[in-house]
Amino acid sequence: MNYPQPIKDLIACLKKMPGVGEKTAERLALSVLEMDKDVVTTFSNSILDVANKITKCSKCGNLTIDDLCEICRDNSRNKKLICVVEEPKNIIMFEKMGTYNGLYFVLGGLISPLDGINPEDLNIDFLVDRIKKEKIEEIIVAVKPSIEGETTTLYLQKKLEGLPVVISKIARGLPIGADIDYVDPLTLEMALEDRIKITNS
Amino acid sequence: MNYPQPIKDLIACLKKMPGVGEKTAERLALSVLEMDKDVVTTFSNSILDVANKITKCSKCGNLTIDDLCEICRDNSRNKKLICVVEEPKNIIMFEKMGTYNGLYFVLGGLISPLDGINPEDLNIDFLVDRIKKEKIEEIIVAVKPSIEGETTTLYLQKKLEGLPVVISKIARGLPIGADIDYVDPLTLEMALEDRIKITNS
Repeated sequence: MNYPQPIKDLIACLKKMPGVGEKTAERLALSVLEMDKDVVTTFSNSILDVANKITKCSKCGNLTIDDLCEICRDNSRNKKLICVVEEPKNIIMFEKMGTYNGLYFVLGGLISPLDGINPEDLNIDFLVDRIKKEKIEEIIVAVKPSIEGETTTLYLQKKLEGLPVVISKIARGLPIGADIDYVDPLTLEMALEDRIKITNS
Repeated sequence: MNYPQPIKDLIACLKKMPGVGEKTAERLALSVLEMDKDVVTTFSNSILDVANKITKCSKCGNLTIDDLCEICRDNSRNKKLICVVEEPKNIIMFEKMGTYNGLYFVLGGLISPLDGINPEDLNIDFLVDRIKKEKIEEIIVAVKPSIEGETTTLYLQKKLEGLPVVISKIARGLPIGADIDYVDPLTLEMALEDRIKITNS
């Protein structure tokens, strides 16, 4: 005896999601039994819609149901500024700030030869083309401060050498509220290296 | 800017599941984008099927797609022995052992006046009827060793007083591999209380 087939199927599908093991999948699957009818319908439909309707914006790689994403279609945005991110979900974080008004570009990963991710696996050529064609004034590389992040930033820098575009990267340093006693040595080293002058004398 | 509607809908549904917060729901929803077409179809269908086709066995309360569950329909089972459990998923654990050959009965909860769960909210009357009608020889109360579990066991004992049925409960004590130094005092007290004679002299 095991669970009836629909529950077994649902457990098997849930187990394909990141961080979901046997016990969690079981608990999540059984929770569907307690859901309201309309939630179940929305749940079932949204899975199909996410898989079938969501595509990547043809310009920046953001998630969208149209050819161009909401941000690329927004004419009030500064179209000369591009923020380069690793994944579409990073865009949501930047948009939550509410202060950035430029466009984005999703790399779709970071250079990591050990994991078999080489520059040609990312959309870098497409980005370079876009910078040339659209006469972009500044790109902000906003990837995580890791070996892969630094490698990717360096590679972009080389690729864009000689082009009339300012390249910047987001600041590395101590997060707000951090205690110097508990910060890791590498973060402290970076904070020191990227120190900012507060007087000119 | 936020996620496109299908992703927003999926995140909202996933957040209704136990232990799934905003960030987890986001990660799980985005993982659907990486799933194979056939997994997506099974996933979507199984949610509808779990919600619409799964019912409770009319005899024991186990999950089933038929009127009677697989276990109640199995004629090789000992029909005079009932194991009383809290939830359908407990049955799966007992079945995994592979040694229990009786039937089950799902209470659907444990008595807990503080949480507003009173005896009449559980299927206890139905169980008592079944014990009388089917001339059950033994019931094994297999609920967790907590205040609610003990209260429920005591209540069942009172309800069945005078009936020709043996009532037993599963043993409480040290789990296999436990270290006496690290066990909680209540478990140790129960293990001492329920000690088993190994000689008769």
